[in-house]
Amino acid sequence: MTSELSLTGYPPQDLLLREDFIKKTELYKTKLISLSKNKKTIIVLNVPNNEKGKLYNSLFLFRNGSIVFKKDKSILPNYGVFDEKRYFKTNGVDKDFFIYKESKIKFLICEEMWSDDYMSHNKKNCDFVISLNASPFELKKFNIRKKIAKKNIQNYNSNLIYLNLVGSQDDLIFDGGSFVMNRKGQIVFQGNFFSDEEYIVSENEINCFKPSKKKFDELENLYSALVYSLRNYMHQNRFKKAIIGLSGGIDSALCLMITADALGSENVNSFFLPSTYTSSESKKDAYQLAKKLEIDLKDISIESMRKKILNELSFLFEGLPQNITEENIQSRIRGLILMAVSNKFNSLLIATGNKSELAVGYSTLYGDMCGGFSLIKDIYKSQVVQLVKWRNEHLLDNFKIRETNVISNNIICKEPTAELKPNQKDSDTLPNYDILDKILEHIIDRRSDISSIMKSGFSKRTIKKVWKMVKNSEYKRYQSAIGPKVSQMSFDKDRRFPLTNKFVI
Amino acid sequence: MTSELSLTGYPPQDLLLREDFIKKTELYKTKLISLSKNKKTIIVLNVPNNEKGKLYNSLFLFRNGSIVFKKDKSILPNYGVFDEKRYFKTNGVDKDFFIYKESKIKFLICEEMWSDDYMSHNKKNCDFVISLNASPFELKKFNIRKKIAKKNIQNYNSNLIYLNLVGSQDDLIFDGGSFVMNRKGQIVFQGNFFSDEEYIVSENEINCFKPSKKKFDELENLYSALVYSLRNYMHQNRFKKAIIGLSGGIDSALCLMITADALGSENVNSFFLPSTYTSSESKKDAYQLAKKLEIDLKDISIESMRKKILNELSFLFEGLPQNITEENIQSRIRGLILMAVSNKFNSLLIATGNKSELAVGYSTLYGDMCGGFSLIKDIYKSQVVQLVKWRNEHLLDNFKIRETNVISNNIICKEPTAELKPNQKDSDTLPNYDILDKILEHIIDRRSDISSIMKSGFSKRTIKKVWKMVKNSEYKRYQSAIGPKVSQMSFDKDRRFPLTNKFVI
Repeated sequence: MTSELSLTGYPPQDLLLREDFIKKTELYKTKLISLSKNKKTIIVLNVPNNEKGKLYNSLFLFRNGSIVFKKDKSILPNYGVFDEKRYFKTNGVDKDFFIYKESKIKFLICEEMWSDDYMSHNKKNCDFVISLNASPFELKKFNIRKKIAKKNIQNYNSNLIYLNLVGSQDDLIFDGGSFVMNRKGQIVFQGNFFSDEEYIVSENEINCFKPSKKKFDELENLYSALVYSLRNYMHQNRFKKAIIGLSGGIDSALCLMITADALGSENVNSFFLPSTYTSSESKKDAYQLAKKLEIDLKDISIESMRKKILNELSFLFEGLPQNITEENIQSRIRGLILMAVSNKFNSLLIATGNKSELAVGYSTLYGDMCGGFSLIKDIYKSQVVQLVKWRNEHLLDNFKIRETNVISNNIICKEPTAELKPNQKDSDTLPNYDILDKILEHIIDRRSDISSIMKSGFSKRTIKKVWKMVKNSEYKRYQSAIGPKVSQMSFDKDRRFPLTNKFVI
Repeated sequence: MTSELSLTGYPPQDLLLREDFIKKTELYKTKLISLSKNKKTIIVLNVPNNEKGKLYNSLFLFRNGSIVFKKDKSILPNYGVFDEKRYFKTNGVDKDFFIYKESKIKFLICEEMWSDDYMSHNKKNCDFVISLNASPFELKKFNIRKKIAKKNIQNYNSNLIYLNLVGSQDDLIFDGGSFVMNRKGQIVFQGNFFSDEEYIVSENEINCFKPSKKKFDELENLYSALVYSLRNYMHQNRFKKAIIGLSGGIDSALCLMITADALGSENVNSFFLPSTYTSSESKKDAYQLAKKLEIDLKDISIESMRKKILNELSFLFEGLPQNITEENIQSRIRGLILMAVSNKFNSLLIATGNKSELAVGYSTLYGDMCGGFSLIKDIYKSQVVQLVKWRNEHLLDNFKIRETNVISNNIICKEPTAELKPNQKDSDTLPNYDILDKILEHIIDRRSDISSIMKSGFSKRTIKKVWKMVKNSEYKRYQSAIGPKVSQMSFDKDRRFPLTNKFVI
C-alpha cells in the first residue's frame, strides 16, 4: 500500500488535464499489475483513472495479474489548498467492502475519512478501515487526524490504518506520521514524521497496545517541517547550495539556522550587505552567528552602489522629499546582489520575510522578497521568536548542525528594525508584533469580522489599519516566492483574494 | 437587470468565505428590495446568497418590496479561471419559469446557458430566455457565445437576451457585448463592447431585424481589450500615471502605444536605459517613437551602474566566465531604476514581456519582469506583430492617440534582441518565433502530446526543448505580475502547474 496518488505526486494540478500524462500513469499502473503476477502480495494503488473520458481518483487492488477491487474517490475536497473538483468526477458514495481471507476491509481515500456524509452511508461494522491520504502538514493537524480516526473507528467499529503521503511539493508538506489505531482508539503503531520508510505491521501488534513514551511537540514538528520542506525543494529542483542575506535580525538568523540544519554549513553561503544605516550591533550579531555556524560570510557594502544610484537619479528626484523610494532602493540593491550570486553559483536564494511582514506589505517587492524559496512566509513574527527559542534548546538527529544555543539573546531580544533610514523601528509603522500577529490571525486565519476582533480587546482604528495594509499588499504577495505552508491559511494555494478589491471591514 | 454578480464583482474569490462580506451583500439586497416599493419596475439581481449556512449564487426578482422569483445557479463552472465549486452549493437543476403578463421567461445564470445537461432538463417552449453572465473576454469568444445562444434558442424555441458583465478585475476582462437574439437566431440588438451603458430594448425591436453593418474584427477587439483592461486596472487601483522602459523593440513599443491610447500621452513617462550593448538603432527607434507620441522620454544610462556593480562583485566572480548572471544584472538595474521612479512618482510600471518570452523563461525575474501590470503577458510574439500592424492602420474613437502609423517599420521588422551582450539575437537561444509560437500554442493552449505536435511538422528535438523551457520557468511565472487574460489559456488563473514537476513529453 502506498499513500494517495503516490505515483503522480500530490497535487498533480493541471498535469491531470494532459492526456499524455494520464496515459503515462496508465502505463505504470499496467506495469504494477504485471508485477503482481504469480505473487502472493496484493498491491494497493491509488491513481488518476480515465474512464470513458471522465477522470476519477481511483483505488485499485492488484492480485496475481488482475484487478480484484476498485473504487472511485467519492468525496472531493475543493477548499483551502484543494481543487479536486477541477479534475475529478465522482460516482456517488460507494458502499463496498473488500473481503480478504476472513477480514472485512473498508478502503477510504483521504477526504472520505473526514466526511460525516460518507460515514452515514457506510454505517457497517468491519475489521479494518484503511485510509490512504495526502494530507498536507499544518500546525496541530496531527491531533485532528487522530480525532477523526477515532470517529471512524466508532462508526465502523473497526481497527484503522491511516497511511499518509510523506514528501513535499512546492508549498505543500506531507508529514507522513502514518499510524495504526485499534478498536479502542489506541495508537498501536506510529510511523515516522518527515521521513519515508516501509513499514510492515503484523496483526499481532494491533492487538497489543504499548503506550508510546514519545511526547509530541508542536514546535519540534514545525521546525522539522521547515527543514524537511527546504531539503526536498532543493533536492527536487537540483540545487545543492543555498545563499542567505543576513541583516543581524531574527528572521534571517532563523532562516540561516534552518537552512544550515537542512543542508549543512558547507552548503550555505551568507552575505552581509550593510549601508550607512546598518548598526555596528547588526554587524556584530550577523558575524557572530555565521561564525558559530561555521558558515562562510561575505561582507558587501551596498553604500557606494546606493550613492551611485541616488546620484544617477538625482536629476529626476531633485527637490523631492526622501520617502519609501530611497528605502526600497537599498533593499533592491541587496536583492540584485544576492540574485547575481545565486545566478553565478547556481545556489538557491532563500527569502527571509515572515508572515507578519508579508501580510501587511512590510517588505520590498524585488528587494527582500527576492528568492526562490520563501522559507518562513507562513510563520508569524511571534512564531519566529518561539522557533528560535525552541531550536536554541533542542537538537534532533537529522539536523546537520550539532549545536544548541546558536542564536544569541541579543538577536532574539532586540527591537525589530529594517535599518533603511536613521533610527528606524518596525514599530514606527506597524503595531507591536504581539498585537499585530493576533489581529492578523483574526483577519487572515479566522476570517473574523471587526466586531469579534474588537471583542478580543483591539481598537477599531488599529484593526481597520491592519485590514487596509493587508488589502493593499495583495499585489505584492501575488508576486512573492513560494514557501512552505505550515498554517491553516498560507499565502500560496490557500488564500485567494482579488488584488483589486475595495471591501472594508 | 444587471449581469452576474454585478454587486460584488466577479469573481469575488475568498471574499465569499467572509461572513461580513456576505452580510454586506445581504444589506444591499435588502436596500434594493425596498427601492422596488411602490414602483412598477421589477429588479433582477444575481447575488451570493447564504441560506442556512450554505452559499448559493442566486437570482432574485424584486417587485413592489418583495421577492417574486428566486432561483439558485445549478451549474457551477470549476475549470479554467473558474472556481465556483469552492464557494457555492447547488440544489440540482431548476425547471422554473417566470411568468410576466403573458410572457413565459426562463432565467439562466451564465454556465447554465452552456450546459447540455441543463438544457435537456428544460426542454420547454418559452417567450424569453434571459441569460445573466460574467463571461471573461477571450479572443474569438464572441462567436462562441452566439453559437451557444442559438443552441438555446432552438432548445427553448424562444427569443434570448444575453446580458454580460462589462468591466475588469485583475486579469479578467469582461467585454460586455450584450445582445438580444430573436427566435430565428438573428441579433436584433447589439450592445457595446468595453463600455458600460444602460440599454432599453422594446419588444417591437425584437420583432424587427435590421442587419448590422459593423464588421467584427478580432484584432480590434483584442487591442481594445488591452486598452480597456489597463485603463480599468489603473483607475480601480488609483493610479493616474504609468511608466514604461523602452528598449527600441516591438514589445515595449506596443505597450507604450496601448498605454498612451488608454491614458493619454500626458500620463505616460517613458525611459530609455542603455548600456554599452545598446545599439544606436535602438536608441533612434525609441526616441522616434516617444517623439511621435509626444511622450516624455528620459535617458538614463545604466552603464556606470553596471560597471560599479560588476566591480563590487569582482572579488567574488574573478576568474569565472561571464554568463547569464551579467545579463541579468543589466536587466535588474533597469528594473530597480524603473521601480524607483514608480515609487517616487506613484506611477504604475508596465511590464512589457510577451507570452512567448514568459512561456520559455526568456525574461529576467526582478528585471524586465518588474511591474504592477504585465500588459501583454498573454500575447504571443507573433500576435504582438499583428497588433502593431493593426494599430498602425486603425484608430477607434476611444483611443487617446489620434494618429495611425506611429510604430515604424524599422521597429516591426528588425530582428528581436535583448541587447544584453554583444551581437545577441533571440534566435541564438530560441527557435524562430513563428516556430516557437506554434509549438507553444500546442503545448500550452491545446495541451497536445508530442506525437500530435510532430504531425504539425516540428522536430521531436525542438518540441522537447520547448517543453523543458516551459517546465523550467514555472517558478518565474509564479512570481510574475498579473496581466490581462485574452486567450483561452492565460498564465494567471487559467494554468496551474506544479513548480516542482518532472513530467516529460
